[in-house]
Amino acid sequence: MAVLLSGGLDSTAAIAVADREADLRLAISVDYGQRHRREIDSARRVAEMYRIPLTVLDLRDWGRSLKGSALTDPSVPVPADSYDVDSMAVTVVPNRNATMLMAAAGVAHAWGIEEVWTAVHSGDHVIYPDCRPEFIASAAQTAELGTGGHVTIRAPFVHMDKAQIVATGARLGAPFELTWSCYEGSETHCGVCGTCRERADAFDRAGVIDPTFYRKA
Amino acid sequence: MAVLLSGGLDSTAAIAVADREADLRLAISVDYGQRHRREIDSARRVAEMYRIPLTVLDLRDWGRSLKGSALTDPSVPVPADSYDVDSMAVTVVPNRNATMLMAAAGVAHAWGIEEVWTAVHSGDHVIYPDCRPEFIASAAQTAELGTGGHVTIRAPFVHMDKAQIVATGARLGAPFELTWSCYEGSETHCGVCGTCRERADAFDRAGVIDPTFYRKA
Repeated sequence: MAVLLSGGLDSTAAIAVADREADLRLAISVDYGQRHRREIDSARRVAEMYRIPLTVLDLRDWGRSLKGSALTDPSVPVPADSYDVDSMAVTVVPNRNATMLMAAAGVAHAWGIEEVWTAVHSGDHVIYPDCRPEFIASAAQTAELGTGGHVTIRAPFVHMDKAQIVATGARLGAPFELTWSCYEGSETHCGVCGTCRERADAFDRAGVIDPTFYRKA
Repeated sequence: MAVLLSGGLDSTAAIAVADREADLRLAISVDYGQRHRREIDSARRVAEMYRIPLTVLDLRDWGRSLKGSALTDPSVPVPADSYDVDSMAVTVVPNRNATMLMAAAGVAHAWGIEEVWTAVHSGDHVIYPDCRPEFIASAAQTAELGTGGHVTIRAPFVHMDKAQIVATGARLGAPFELTWSCYEGSETHCGVCGTCRERADAFDRAGVIDPTFYRKA
């Protein structure tokens, strides 16, 4: 299969599961002009470790045309607060997962690969509509119909929370020390933005030692 | 609404219908590195005529990662033959419509636009799986779920053939003389590729005078 690899915790754990379970052939990252593009370097290191090719899709022009998201619009600040609906709403990138999944399904088809995996999880359901189980089911059907039955989509973590994903990844030796979460995207994890807090909390709840250096934590 | 405007006959007729029927606000073209990128100039002229902004999404990097389609891979020749399944199969771009529709739905959401129109039609159903009614229904659902209910997709011509579209567009004064169909993408329509033949045939069957100069016809 091909795995959408952002370079964060969840998709890196998905790579570890895919590597164990089945025929892991390709990692796909999407550069949509996100502030935290440093995560693509992380994706590259993870793909190297698993000895699979990484295709980086440049969708920056699409990202630029989406005004108003803190992740792509430099005029909108990243919320430094808890990871909840109100504070994170500004980080929604309109229809991000649908766009990335359909682009990735096309690439998979061209490679003769039958599944695209995405690491969306239950902790994102409230904030991001395109991480919910009903969205994934619909996207899988759209990819199947759009590719004439050649490619489908799977979300192995859609019913897990981030702590369960960290526990699962840790059991399989996922290289979490290579991963990146911070939405700010500087040299080290800020430790105060919503995703940094969510990251630290997931390690804590999973009972796994957090290898991350947090600047301000 | 926003209309996916390739610069061809069908999407230009869709613009004419949208302009008559409802709140036409935006045209969206996608540059996926297609050989016939000349169609984007046509899209620009059509959008100017209707006095709406045109957003051109640069998805060329995605297009480059899709090997094996005659439309994006320079090593694969365009079939010079009839517009049928066997000869046109090589022009399939994997999951093209799903990718373009989901990217466009994100742009629409960012603009506060609730509908994305696509001009897929019944003549393409056999060749292109992502032009069929069941695909459109699924893509509409995926866009709705992916945008939290903000954007849906409509395909006003999904049950029409190309001759009916030409007749419909002609009645509304669609500027067919500005449009482009030829997959070869040189200065004039070649007149021998599958899409040129399909274009000439549609005018003929609709009983509408064809404004196109065909080089070799």
